[in-house]
Amino acid sequence: MAEVGVTTTPGGAAYPVTVHTLELQVRTGDVERVVDLTGRCAEFLRGAGARDGLLNVFVPHATAGVAVLETGAGSDDDLLAALAELLPRGGPGGSGWRHRHGTPGHGRDHVLPALVPPATTLPVVGGQLALGTWQSVCLVDTNVDNAVRTVRLSYLAG
Amino acid sequence: MAEVGVTTTPGGAAYPVTVHTLELQVRTGDVERVVDLTGRCAEFLRGAGARDGLLNVFVPHATAGVAVLETGAGSDDDLLAALAELLPRGGPGGSGWRHRHGTPGHGRDHVLPALVPPATTLPVVGGQLALGTWQSVCLVDTNVDNAVRTVRLSYLAG
Amino acid sequence: MAEVGVTTTPGGAAYPVTVHTLELQVRTGDVERVVDLTGRCAEFLRGAGARDGLLNVFVPHATAGVAVLETGAGSDDDLLAALAELLPRGGPGGSGWRHRHGTPGHGRDHVLPALVPPATTLPVVGGQLALGTWQSVCLVDTNVDNAVRTVRLSYLAG
Repeated sequence: MAEVGVTTTPGGAAYPVTVHTLELQVRTGDVERVVDLTGRCAEFLRGAGARDGLLNVFVPHATAGVAVLETGAGSDDDLLAALAELLPRGGPGGSGWRHRHGTPGHGRDHVLPALVPPATTLPVVGGQLALGTWQSVCLVDTNVDNAVRTVRLSYLAG
Repeated sequence: MAEVGVTTTPGGAAYPVTVHTLELQVRTGDVERVVDLTGRCAEFLRGAGARDGLLNVFVPHATAGVAVLETGAGSDDDLLAALAELLPRGGPGGSGWRHRHGTPGHGRDHVLPALVPPATTLPVVGGQLALGTWQSVCLVDTNVDNAVRTVRLSYLAG
Repeated sequence: MAEVGVTTTPGGAAYPVTVHTLELQVRTGDVERVVDLTGRCAEFLRGAGARDGLLNVFVPHATAGVAVLETGAGSDDDLLAALAELLPRGGPGGSGWRHRHGTPGHGRDHVLPALVPPATTLPVVGGQLALGTWQSVCLVDTNVDNAVRTVRLSYLAG
């Protein structure tokens, strides 16, 4: 068990809550794709005139997920390759998927959101998403049958 | 990288926050099960007289998860079949599980919540859970030793 | 489909929202590690003079996750063993990882947060984290190159 260390940024103040919510359309095309949404989240928060709070990023689709990843250094493709092994088009142990609509193997896309959930909730501090240097908020879409996806951003702030 | 598109539903208003929280009991019996909780969430939100906010769905158990999935078209069984491959009763690579309480192979149920987390937080707009057409909020329970499960719903709203 | 049962803890009241946020430093050293943060979360909530709300636990790193698990009975080691199979150092199907910085096999650490997300949001009731008996909030760190990790706790309460 590791030592748990120093408190660096205490806070806390009482305000009326503000709720902002907005839907984006994202073009993912007909290939498997990891789409970086970080810039769009930041823009949304600027529009909300934000202080401290929580940002919820949600995909209202049964065949996509939201992940926080490094992008641009291979890890987005590594994720798609890992998912091809973990949820193969041929089904668990090659036995096929019970869900049989759409493109062959599409059943895997319906299991994806159990492992890569369609929602994440992230801290906002001083109006900025409090991500680490190498983190990006990403849409993960293995479904090649759906070219445009919706993303809902919701912000609860003090 | 995909084009990020049009803003369709801007919002934002300041209110006193409202916090509602409630526990449900769910009978899962002695088989692996995916239980649809969507109707129960909607009922809870109606009782809360809700506007916009975030709904948290949480399972206070170390051997269950919460997933947002399509139900009724095979994907719930596909998830259980995928988990049987990813977290086999025989342990990682057939080497067994260190956790050895309960039914043989039960150690996998204790790893499940790392992959299918016990909490999800979802947007509520105008008092309605803002799910996509094919999405349901589900309890995922691979633990056959525990016939009744608790689910806590918590709602923070403006 | 299981019977959905009795409501046991209704609630709901309007207050000004309170937002507390704080960063911890956690020493994880140079081995793979699951670190229990539950005590530190409870201490943070005590300092916040909390009522009901939501606690967000977030790791601002691209190679770590947050999981809610039983600790101290083997499941933390079981999780690390399962992840060694699911995200092998040799890459998906032994084909290597595209991300090639750091220690050999480090590419897997960058995929980890898609499966074990870096954020969880948990209910707080009467100032207490509403965890089940066997649940602990844990940092999951498979990255052996990074000896100290940051964790951000954020609390929105009525």
